[in-house]
Amino acid sequence: METLRLYDFLPSGNGYKLRLLLTQMGMPFERVEVNILKGETRTPEFLSKNPNGKIPVLEIEPGKYLAESNAILVYLSEGTEFLPYDRFLRAQVLQWLFFEQYSHEPFIATPRFWISILGKEKENHAAIKQKQELGYVALKVMEKHLTSRKFFVGERYTIADIALFAYTHVADEGGFDLIQFPAIQAWIEQIKALPGYISINQE
Amino acid sequence: METLRLYDFLPSGNGYKLRLLLTQMGMPFERVEVNILKGETRTPEFLSKNPNGKIPVLEIEPGKYLAESNAILVYLSEGTEFLPYDRFLRAQVLQWLFFEQYSHEPFIATPRFWISILGKEKENHAAIKQKQELGYVALKVMEKHLTSRKFFVGERYTIADIALFAYTHVADEGGFDLIQFPAIQAWIEQIKALPGYISINQE
Repeated sequence: METLRLYDFLPSGNGYKLRLLLTQMGMPFERVEVNILKGETRTPEFLSKNPNGKIPVLEIEPGKYLAESNAILVYLSEGTEFLPYDRFLRAQVLQWLFFEQYSHEPFIATPRFWISILGKEKENHAAIKQKQELGYVALKVMEKHLTSRKFFVGERYTIADIALFAYTHVADEGGFDLIQFPAIQAWIEQIKALPGYISINQE
Repeated sequence: METLRLYDFLPSGNGYKLRLLLTQMGMPFERVEVNILKGETRTPEFLSKNPNGKIPVLEIEPGKYLAESNAILVYLSEGTEFLPYDRFLRAQVLQWLFFEQYSHEPFIATPRFWISILGKEKENHAAIKQKQELGYVALKVMEKHLTSRKFFVGERYTIADIALFAYTHVADEGGFDLIQFPAIQAWIEQIKALPGYISINQE
């Protein structure tokens, strides 16, 4: 089998999802850093890999590319302990993956990007406040769900947890305060203690 | 088997995805209209079905609920002609489903909601322009992809087409002009001619 190649940007939570899963699966991969701040996802070469111009992209074999972090999570985890086999549980995993991309990531990742990656908090003050409000709505949904559960789906650690963990555990870098979410905090600590855990800054 | 129950809002493209798929699959279902404009997704009763307070929600059997339109599409289409069996093709379908929810729907559905459903174009003029700009980026990605293909994945009509069709074919209701996208237009006409096609306003 070819070594998987991951086109990635180290601070990206979406890239981190895949680094974390691949490491926990014990699957070797080669990381190619693509600096999104320097326009490296907008070159003709990168656009030939993902016409939507976003990392992460997984090169499964030479010339065979897959984009969208959560689609890649599903692709990699099929047939493993990280994705349930049961049809309804699998559907619930997908439900949380779509929740993450639609109701969570745009509001929790973006303030972090503006504040901690671009260093442009003042310039984006109003937009950050607006995003944070919706981010807190997503965190409340997560808190409620986790109050009676250890993990998001089927009482087991799955890619639903990985997808939601990626930006939630660094939400403070986007100005969020998790103090009001004890169940989320306990879930974060639980994931950090799992075998094969790596941090978001670890290459 | 129980009859599937779909909590839905007729003008919703996300709800329409499921009406279209279920009809094309020949699967009977009961539609329950939930008027999102009257706060009916914010009642304690509805929030017990989907804590994220959004339609569509599929009730698979009494008390067993699934949210997120694209997760429901996958759940319903598994093992049918609408979702490829091949692992990489299936991953490509998911890639487009996540593209739709992250890079397409927020920018193409929202102007339609403000203009044609709420009738509040003037009040949201600046926000509409901003969304439309990003909506056109998504349409360009689709146009490029469809220029050399009849359908999004594997040269066959799949739930990737259904998900992207839902809001694209009514993009004009959000002020988009599809005249510059001939491949998208041909793809729309092709879908409208498929067996079992129903329109978005058809209960």
